Amino acid sequence: MSFSFQQNFKLGVLGGGQLGRMLIQSGIDFNIPFSILDPDEHAPCSTLAEFHHGKLTDFDTVMKFGSACDVITIEIENVNTKALKALVDQGKKVYPQPEVIELIQDKRIQKAFYRDNGIPTAEFILVENATEVKQNATFLPAVNKLGKEGYDGRGVQILREEKDLAKAFDAPGLLEKLIDFDKEISVIVARNEAGEIKTFPVVEMVFHPVHNLVEYLFAPADISKAIAQEADTIACKIITTLNMVGILAVEMFVTKDGKVLVNEIAPRPHNSGHQTIEANTTSQYEQHLRAILNLPLGDTSLCIPSAMVNLLGEADYSGLAKYEGFNEVVKLPGVHVHLYGKRFTKPFRKMGHVTIVDHDVERLKEKTNFVKETLKVIA
Amino acid sequence: MSFSFQQNFKLGVLGGGQLGRMLIQSGIDFNIPFSILDPDEHAPCSTLAEFHHGKLTDFDTVMKFGSACDVITIEIENVNTKALKALVDQGKKVYPQPEVIELIQDKRIQKAFYRDNGIPTAEFILVENATEVKQNATFLPAVNKLGKEGYDGRGVQILREEKDLAKAFDAPGLLEKLIDFDKEISVIVARNEAGEIKTFPVVEMVFHPVHNLVEYLFAPADISKAIAQEADTIACKIITTLNMVGILAVEMFVTKDGKVLVNEIAPRPHNSGHQTIEANTTSQYEQHLRAILNLPLGDTSLCIPSAMVNLLGEADYSGLAKYEGFNEVVKLPGVHVHLYGKRFTKPFRKMGHVTIVDHDVERLKEKTNFVKETLKVIA
Repeated sequence: MSFSFQQNFKLGVLGGGQLGRMLIQSGIDFNIPFSILDPDEHAPCSTLAEFHHGKLTDFDTVMKFGSACDVITIEIENVNTKALKALVDQGKKVYPQPEVIELIQDKRIQKAFYRDNGIPTAEFILVENATEVKQNATFLPAVNKLGKEGYDGRGVQILREEKDLAKAFDAPGLLEKLIDFDKEISVIVARNEAGEIKTFPVVEMVFHPVHNLVEYLFAPADISKAIAQEADTIACKIITTLNMVGILAVEMFVTKDGKVLVNEIAPRPHNSGHQTIEANTTSQYEQHLRAILNLPLGDTSLCIPSAMVNLLGEADYSGLAKYEGFNEVVKLPGVHVHLYGKRFTKPFRKMGHVTIVDHDVERLKEKTNFVKETLKVIA
Repeated sequence: MSFSFQQNFKLGVLGGGQLGRMLIQSGIDFNIPFSILDPDEHAPCSTLAEFHHGKLTDFDTVMKFGSACDVITIEIENVNTKALKALVDQGKKVYPQPEVIELIQDKRIQKAFYRDNGIPTAEFILVENATEVKQNATFLPAVNKLGKEGYDGRGVQILREEKDLAKAFDAPGLLEKLIDFDKEISVIVARNEAGEIKTFPVVEMVFHPVHNLVEYLFAPADISKAIAQEADTIACKIITTLNMVGILAVEMFVTKDGKVLVNEIAPRPHNSGHQTIEANTTSQYEQHLRAILNLPLGDTSLCIPSAMVNLLGEADYSGLAKYEGFNEVVKLPGVHVHLYGKRFTKPFRKMGHVTIVDHDVERLKEKTNFVKETLKVIA
């Protein structure tokens, strides 16, 4: 069988951020020609591939962009799915499928999907507005989530007690029981057109206490085999039920009594899979490309224990980015810095990440702490 | 200390082939802005960075290109060194230094350098023309090399016996004693501006019997510790003596009586270091970038045994490249295909390479043979 997608072929990506950038970086190996659409003309992908400047939510823009591509994928969910459906009708391959993107765009539909398919998730109530939230004071402590437009910690807040009800979102959303979890974990699973499915080993996420972003992550997760198996099974069940093609990140809670509950899913390369570039046989980026181009999926074995630290803009700096401590951290064996090519930093902007690998888990943690304390994005 | 080369900085690369392509791919991690010069407008780098179309051997072209860069490097030796010297006079950093490139451009100067600095190499005679070659019949069997313009097996031929003298090169060159070697090995060594030096572990090369190109390679080399140490010492001595900044590949023979002799050197990322992308903590590409940007050099430890197979165009095919057997080989765990983005194949053209990794050396060899037998570039 010959392999021909490099000739007269174009892979379109909606979104030109860091996930697209690492997808391009990986795709160089297989000589995949990319075309990128992003509303920011200086997006991280803008200098690395054919680049189109335009709105991802605009029907005509997405139609025009997609019509010139053979396969279309996303690196962000907030895109015009009507245009994607019209492109499918034109015979284009769109992976993940537009219906899957729509399900992820609305946390209300997402939660209903879990409930309807017997996928374990935190108990919830759908609410239409702030008034309905306030009518459910007995449901607290709970997480109040907006149905749409939540991203990177926005549109999500914790309502612990009755006085917190004052800040309830006044838009369609949901109330979810606050889970007293032991750990947050993630499984990345991929499925290709032929239906082949492969999961990456479970990773453990540690969130920033205030900004609700992954602060750092360890792989493999420090959990029992039974819980790892349960998480793996859940991830496979979701991607199979969705009939989805591409890569899917499944974020889960492990409760203090050892239950695994799905928190959220994302049908694209994910923050919780960055470390696969260095620590696994196949990276999540290559796996996504394999899945959507219907290639055999790659081996996902973990080669070495790893940690991943998000590199966020320091709180008090805005302007042209500088990377303090860069030389000190790249001096350490097994420290891999990834900068996203963003010229300007601002407080808590994702400017890069660092993967740290070591066969000795204690040394891994020491190096990770050193990186977190040393490398700073200032202006 | 802050790190600022990503802002208002440009790294110029003379040559836009596969080595430049993998350099760009690596440089994405550190957000290094590249500018590339190549005579082929469809060169492998042309779509991945700022690209300038022009001759590398033309003084004005190189001057104009280099004047807009901050640091200039090469990925091929056949460049205009006069222009590079003028750029140094203008205050640009050029690594490797133009004098080192000139030494490598002429195999006669290179051999004299080894002799003058006590670096072990095969015995040789400098010759000005075919007549002088013929006068040295008693020196056979020997390798007749052109002083200049030899590359990828061209400009090199073996003269075993007197009747072979008829094909002697009629230009300045040299005659080198044919070495009855046991193995060919390579050490890649890097040195940064601060003088820090690091070597990669020794690799073993197996050449194609006819086309004089590296056919495949194993790392680590199957040699004694003493020989590995000797090869490492020689590589360090050469880069120190040259006072060179950047990465240097040192190809060596191990003779049947256990001597290590330098064959050739190349002051750039090298075919014998491709496998470092997957098999070592730091790749040769990142190491070159670290060296020329005066960053601390990266850890070169081998993480896993590896083999590297060059993917050459099949003998009987010319035209739009197709990759037969691609799906079969990417299905195997630890097989990493790198295609160079060349639209057209021709016999023995370097179209890509495949790195194979495995902790089990026997399985590594089996997978390597499977890749060699299965993956073919046809048209």
